[in-house]
Amino acid sequence: MKVLLVFAHPEPQSLSASLRDVAIAELQAAGHDVRLSDLYAMGWKSEIDRADFPALGPDDRLLPVAASRQAFAEGRLTADVAAEIDKLRWADALILQFPLWWFAMPAILKGWVDRVFAFGFAYGVGEHSDLRWGDRYGEGTLAGKRAMLIVAAGGWQQHYGRRGVNGPIDDLLFPINHGILYYPGYAVLPPFVIEAAAEGVRKRMRGLETTAPIPYRRQNGGDYHIPSMELREGLGAGASGFGLHVREEGESEI
Amino acid sequence: MKVLLVFAHPEPQSLSASLRDVAIAELQAAGHDVRLSDLYAMGWKSEIDRADFPALGPDDRLLPVAASRQAFAEGRLTADVAAEIDKLRWADALILQFPLWWFAMPAILKGWVDRVFAFGFAYGVGEHSDLRWGDRYGEGTLAGKRAMLIVAAGGWQQHYGRRGVNGPIDDLLFPINHGILYYPGYAVLPPFVIEAAAEGVRKRMRGLETTAPIPYRRQNGGDYHIPSMELREGLGAGASGFGLHVREEGESEI
Repeated sequence: MKVLLVFAHPEPQSLSASLRDVAIAELQAAGHDVRLSDLYAMGWKSEIDRADFPALGPDDRLLPVAASRQAFAEGRLTADVAAEIDKLRWADALILQFPLWWFAMPAILKGWVDRVFAFGFAYGVGEHSDLRWGDRYGEGTLAGKRAMLIVAAGGWQQHYGRRGVNGPIDDLLFPINHGILYYPGYAVLPPFVIEAAAEGVRKRMRGLETTAPIPYRRQNGGDYHIPSMELREGLGAGASGFGLHVREEGESEI
Repeated sequence: MKVLLVFAHPEPQSLSASLRDVAIAELQAAGHDVRLSDLYAMGWKSEIDRADFPALGPDDRLLPVAASRQAFAEGRLTADVAAEIDKLRWADALILQFPLWWFAMPAILKGWVDRVFAFGFAYGVGEHSDLRWGDRYGEGTLAGKRAMLIVAAGGWQQHYGRRGVNGPIDDLLFPINHGILYYPGYAVLPPFVIEAAAEGVRKRMRGLETTAPIPYRRQNGGDYHIPSMELREGLGAGASGFGLHVREEGESEI
């Protein structure tokens, strides 16, 4: 299996970096081929700006969706972005590892998503019709691949529990798991949230090929009305909020 | 009223920029004093890195929490961060305006939060004891001030509805509204999500002083067990997920 690990912590001697090395060693010991994008070490640029779109004339407005669509279609993405897209196409599995800062990714990793997940590659893919709403949420360029988060969350586990003051960790990560990873097609494994760490991360690495993905609902699989994209009546009866978008126990895919 | 608007879009001629100007004009017409942090125009640096902490020796590890605590305590924050903190102290209300990219802030705005919300200023504030767990979630440096989001979300409103495929917009914004704004003390107004835009943003500006904040539960107000920080039994009976952390209709604060 080919694995890309994208790492976002500024300190090479941090616990996060040590756990990254534990994860990579475990994968390599199992015979997997691992590549690393260490964003701080690479000097990754976080901001979408005019430098990303050399085809834009000086008087053209920078509208990120349109500019991304054009640059991808014409093969004029910047070299750093094109290299990350090549890695994503190469990898069978993507791991994003980061500390949870303000209940979200560090800016540098958000900037990796903003810039690398180009129109035509990660969104704006596939046919729109009365029966389909593009290839996303279970379909898309990255379908057939796996993804998971390795997240170092500060604070007590209970504070992130079902009734904890921060909100449940699975809900806090939903915009990433569902909105960033499932959207372009990845099967998303449950996140590994770092507490008592090294043995746990080894165990998750051993299960990378076999762990069951989160059963998010496929957009075009029949669960949603098209074009309103609302969940059909009768589905998700036992759930609420984000839980609606995960198939329930015993509910098979249509 | 003094208002700080933090703006994160790369194009000065975008719809977002036009709506920002509509918002500022409406506030000024009502006699408010407005300052603008236009992050792209300022060339804001997104990444927390060693340049943020000149007090760190070349052999010191960069551990962001510890480095932030030390820099804030010793008055050695970088000039760009210190200037933003001064604006936040000055302002009675904070508005964050941004396009929703991948269901979250653009990297440059996340980097503003990561760098400006320093330890001792926005977190790590107040007494920890058997009865209190620091000043956060309803208390903190920014208590007594108001905050709100102005968000341009791509896609159909229904896709962000209660059963829409993206997840409900209020849930998607919870990590920002509750985790970034309510955490350091702001009273958080309902977000303005841009659809049919200009008249709506004017209306919200007219209500900046009077709109009822979201009734998030105060951490130390009696609703949570300390130190587990879990919501007390009997509260939130009609809610689930993030909804637990909002007081219900008719439920007064303890």
